[in-house]
Amino acid sequence: MSRREPARRNEFTNWRTVTTRWADNDVYGHVNNTIYYEWFDSAVNAWMVEQGMLDIATGDPIALVVETSCSYFASLAFPEAVQVGLAVAQLGTSSIRYRIGIFTEGAETAAATGEFVHVVVDRTSRRPVAIPADWRARLEGLAG
Amino acid sequence: MSRREPARRNEFTNWRTVTTRWADNDVYGHVNNTIYYEWFDSAVNAWMVEQGMLDIATGDPIALVVETSCSYFASLAFPEAVQVGLAVAQLGTSSIRYRIGIFTEGAETAAATGEFVHVVVDRTSRRPVAIPADWRARLEGLAG
Amino acid sequence: MSRREPARRNEFTNWRTVTTRWADNDVYGHVNNTIYYEWFDSAVNAWMVEQGMLDIATGDPIALVVETSCSYFASLAFPEAVQVGLAVAQLGTSSIRYRIGIFTEGAETAAATGEFVHVVVDRTSRRPVAIPADWRARLEGLAG
Amino acid sequence: MSRREPARRNEFTNWRTVTTRWADNDVYGHVNNTIYYEWFDSAVNAWMVEQGMLDIATGDPIALVVETSCSYFASLAFPEAVQVGLAVAQLGTSSIRYRIGIFTEGAETAAATGEFVHVVVDRTSRRPVAIPADWRARLEGLAG
Repeated sequence: MSRREPARRNEFTNWRTVTTRWADNDVYGHVNNTIYYEWFDSAVNAWMVEQGMLDIATGDPIALVVETSCSYFASLAFPEAVQVGLAVAQLGTSSIRYRIGIFTEGAETAAATGEFVHVVVDRTSRRPVAIPADWRARLEGLAG
Repeated sequence: MSRREPARRNEFTNWRTVTTRWADNDVYGHVNNTIYYEWFDSAVNAWMVEQGMLDIATGDPIALVVETSCSYFASLAFPEAVQVGLAVAQLGTSSIRYRIGIFTEGAETAAATGEFVHVVVDRTSRRPVAIPADWRARLEGLAG
Repeated sequence: MSRREPARRNEFTNWRTVTTRWADNDVYGHVNNTIYYEWFDSAVNAWMVEQGMLDIATGDPIALVVETSCSYFASLAFPEAVQVGLAVAQLGTSSIRYRIGIFTEGAETAAATGEFVHVVVDRTSRRPVAIPADWRARLEGLAG
Repeated sequence: MSRREPARRNEFTNWRTVTTRWADNDVYGHVNNTIYYEWFDSAVNAWMVEQGMLDIATGDPIALVVETSCSYFASLAFPEAVQVGLAVAQLGTSSIRYRIGIFTEGAETAAATGEFVHVVVDRTSRRPVAIPADWRARLEGLAG
């Protein structure tokens, strides 16, 4: 098993703090592995909404998830809050690969590191379209 | 259908702000009804942990949920954060009835109001025990 | 605390079996109280879809949740499957009150009993409308 | 973006059917990307429980998740049930790499394919230990 090294804070260009929930902890007393993906999804989409790129109800194009992954290095537990670092790792014609890091307050290395790949699609046909120019400019600003 | 009036802020004695997640929104574009209960559970247990009443991993007694309810008055949606108000509504020998209100930032009336009933039980036997004296003192301080 | 008696199987007119998930169990080793509401929501909406009453993507009217409650009598745990009983308890002009029971395989009394209230609304305005006649006929057939 | 091909049914040696939930669908009308990981977790652990390898409450060793990934090829939606295929892809000294496929009823190619890596650890210290011999025998029987 080739386990990657945990990411450091300087690999991320956007940050937000999110709260944990009682139900996030599983029977082993730590945040379940699936919850990290809820944070990934939320960090990317919240950033897009803040940038005015995404109107969830009616916007077109939209971005669909085609690939995700996460490596877990240290456990987390409710009720602690966590910091989510976000950066764009790679931009294609219609795809965006994000790098995400989950950090406990004050920690220099990530408790978990993930990748999250969006493909930009037409809202109705759900077929890939080129990343709009204004999206691309903002995404380049998030490069890490 | 007899629908209760939404609660007001002065009915709650403890407050915390929690973040929403992309996956909280269901297909109708608003936070799904089940998520409010994740906030209820989290508000009660986070308060207990902060008060030193509950060590999640090893504490004894623990508190189990026997009854919950929620009335929904206004919809919420990711990515907004929400404020959770908490108060003790009623204390029995081994049961605690909490009142919980979910508020959007700045709103005077609740988007949702709930009740959440804990029974205090022995960690191993899971049988009801009297609320410990130090718990009772803290719970009385949370009366609303 | 006035705790209702658990419901019996003959109080329900529609049944389905649902699977539990590892993440449903919380730190105390049993299905978390919030998960029952995921089953409530799913039982009601799956029945509506099966009856041709609800096209999730485009149907009009839709049904929004205004009130839910649950009483917990016995614990459940992954990996067991559970049986969900459903019945209509009360029909108003635009509201539907469902009774729901969660049963373990072979048990005569419910592990949990809940109520779930839908209000039928116009998809766009989200304002209450009268329950359509064809819905009403199907809902009356679900009376328990 | 190098996107892998979807897996086929003959790459999996163990199968189970799981039910979807209303709340699984996100605002775009399909099962959210995080839910697939709930199925991964559940398939692996349910199999371990069935094999007598894992007593969730008291068993020792336990298996912790250190890496997960998923590629999404086709969307799924509540209320359909899905079939989860499982196989062991690789066995290390203390690590187990599972391959998982999510299939709709009757489909020959997977709607999503994932990997899920467990490390076997001492329940108390949470430090890696060698896979027990009886576990290894069962895991080899799951090779795909």
